[in-house]
Amino acid sequence: MTPGRMEAFSDGVIAILITVMVLGLRVPDGAQWSSLRDTVPTLLNYALSFVYLGIYWNNHHHMLQTVHSINGAALWANLHLLFWLSLFPVTTEWTSASHFAEVPVAVYGIVLLAAALAYYLLQTVIIRHQQPDSLLARAIGSDFKGKASPLFYILGIALAFVNPWIGVALYVAVACMWLVPDRRVERTLASSESASESMSESN
Amino acid sequence: MTPGRMEAFSDGVIAILITVMVLGLRVPDGAQWSSLRDTVPTLLNYALSFVYLGIYWNNHHHMLQTVHSINGAALWANLHLLFWLSLFPVTTEWTSASHFAEVPVAVYGIVLLAAALAYYLLQTVIIRHQQPDSLLARAIGSDFKGKASPLFYILGIALAFVNPWIGVALYVAVACMWLVPDRRVERTLASSESASESMSESN
Amino acid sequence: MTPGRMEAFSDGVIAILITVMVLGLRVPDGAQWSSLRDTVPTLLNYALSFVYLGIYWNNHHHMLQTVHSINGAALWANLHLLFWLSLFPVTTEWTSASHFAEVPVAVYGIVLLAAALAYYLLQTVIIRHQQPDSLLARAIGSDFKGKASPLFYILGIALAFVNPWIGVALYVAVACMWLVPDRRVERTLASSESASESMSESN
Amino acid sequence: MTPGRMEAFSDGVIAILITVMVLGLRVPDGAQWSSLRDTVPTLLNYALSFVYLGIYWNNHHHMLQTVHSINGAALWANLHLLFWLSLFPVTTEWTSASHFAEVPVAVYGIVLLAAALAYYLLQTVIIRHQQPDSLLARAIGSDFKGKASPLFYILGIALAFVNPWIGVALYVAVACMWLVPDRRVERTLASSESASESMSESN
Repeated sequence: MTPGRMEAFSDGVIAILITVMVLGLRVPDGAQWSSLRDTVPTLLNYALSFVYLGIYWNNHHHMLQTVHSINGAALWANLHLLFWLSLFPVTTEWTSASHFAEVPVAVYGIVLLAAALAYYLLQTVIIRHQQPDSLLARAIGSDFKGKASPLFYILGIALAFVNPWIGVALYVAVACMWLVPDRRVERTLASSESASESMSESN
Repeated sequence: MTPGRMEAFSDGVIAILITVMVLGLRVPDGAQWSSLRDTVPTLLNYALSFVYLGIYWNNHHHMLQTVHSINGAALWANLHLLFWLSLFPVTTEWTSASHFAEVPVAVYGIVLLAAALAYYLLQTVIIRHQQPDSLLARAIGSDFKGKASPLFYILGIALAFVNPWIGVALYVAVACMWLVPDRRVERTLASSESASESMSESN
Repeated sequence: MTPGRMEAFSDGVIAILITVMVLGLRVPDGAQWSSLRDTVPTLLNYALSFVYLGIYWNNHHHMLQTVHSINGAALWANLHLLFWLSLFPVTTEWTSASHFAEVPVAVYGIVLLAAALAYYLLQTVIIRHQQPDSLLARAIGSDFKGKASPLFYILGIALAFVNPWIGVALYVAVACMWLVPDRRVERTLASSESASESMSESN
Repeated sequence: MTPGRMEAFSDGVIAILITVMVLGLRVPDGAQWSSLRDTVPTLLNYALSFVYLGIYWNNHHHMLQTVHSINGAALWANLHLLFWLSLFPVTTEWTSASHFAEVPVAVYGIVLLAAALAYYLLQTVIIRHQQPDSLLARAIGSDFKGKASPLFYILGIALAFVNPWIGVALYVAVACMWLVPDRRVERTLASSESASESMSESN
């Protein structure tokens, strides 16, 4: 199976999740500048979740660039990832509605953690389906970011009970770490393409 | 006609249905762990409907892998299937809101049943449009799962009036039965590809 | 420009409109069979709008099958059509909420009429961009259905003030007329393909 | 990387935003013609935002026609644009709900301005990734409209505090300016195609 329809479906779901979160943005009461004050934390929280969904879409996109065939297990691993992503709007809204209380911030982190593990699982399922020394496996390499993120999330969940803003700060830190585009795949792809071009030229 | 746009449209509708269900997930009242208690059955119900929509997407995807041409009747059979799938969010929310009362659980099953019959109809319309001994017809074979599911649903609908949880258990059982990816199509496709490759090699 | 992205965008919007209408389906109050009674007219109204959106998607799909190049005017004519289609969920909900009162049924018809005219405009813009004796122009021919529908809608709008159910009956009649798949395009396409095949064979 | 999936994702998000705005259209109270009176400004406001999203989709479509390769920075610049577009439904609803009060009209303009700057940024990132004298760079040329729009928005934001309707009038003016399809790209594309055709013919 080619990954085309899986990509299209994931794009659809992530696109909708990003916009469903918009429905959680309430129209401010009143029509003064001061009416916006209550909206600011909600908006920043929305922006954070938007960035997270953007990161997942981006990495998903990069990962599948190198993959030309998937199996049924990958379809389910992908749906499993989408399930956790689909909970982002609710946890985002709960965090905002509770004005960043301890439990909602921790639950926000738990869903982030579950999504990260689901992504890792999907990546593993796809790599296992490839040849041993596949492009994707080489591109990912030691996967420092993928392994560090869950630790940050766990730390964030725990420290949310000390002060929720420490939790939020750690979630923001992980987002920043990922915002740097994943050049590993681009670089490996580029070098592999130039390699295959020189091969086809020599033919 | 090629099935490309029908696939894209179905992907879109199913992707949206999966995420529209998220809107049925209410933000918990309060910000304590205990506030989550009421959310748990709703969440499990959401997960069940998510899995069902995932199964339909997955099987739809597998089915159309083998099909290179469709007719107008297939477009309408497909829209008919999407109509029943589009009722999943409402029946899911009704089931949750009523705390799994008898009638809502039965109605949930009736919509599952209607979707299963609509899928069967779509499959039949598509097969009839293919050559008699098409890949899809061979891949589906006796279609045990497709024929057993409606019986389970009918049983679930009836037993929901004895105890709604028996109904729910039967719906979960059908979902588990389908969760095993449909290897028939993958296997038949693989064998047919190797056959056609050996044919083209011998040419 | 190829019509690929215009198709994809239209598919997206129509898929979302079909599912946004689901949000208008309220969860019934209570958990008895009788709670469903109030839902039945809403559900039938939803089904009618679903069928209408299905018809538009279907005809849109057939129309663009024959078209390999579009211009900027077609993009805007298409957005104009999508604008009127996007009002279907609101008029559907208003009709249901008012229990099929005169004005809402008439407004429902006005939006149907506007969408029909917008479709006609799009078709005209696309045909004008093709060669004089294009496949699409021949496939559409005298376009009886396209010209009859607006008359039915106008009649329905007017008679809604006598009795709203006459209006509804006329809207249902138009939907039934279109439900028959548009074989003109399929037939013309088929004959053109066999013609071009025999041409390429003779080359 | 090819821009295919970025296009598909953007199409998805814009399609959803256009339809999410529909959810802001409330069903009128009552079932008289007079019940529609309150809906008219909301509807016109909806139409304006619909046209704006249509313009962005249209220009996005035209811009990417000429581009065959993008980098990671373009993916993020694109997500940044989508973020600002995703705020259109809320600002639209706030403007309507406040009956076009000063601050909401100004905020509506600020989000329009931010989206325009984000589009300009995306365009710059994409052009920088192309060859110096790329088709896109030539097609855009001096980019009069792209540079004039932010000035109009700033004027509109400022004058909204004199009278909100002046602000609205300026936003409508910018929309009208863009409604004229961007023939620069079409023309440059057409001339480039005929050039490359004559080149390939001479080969």
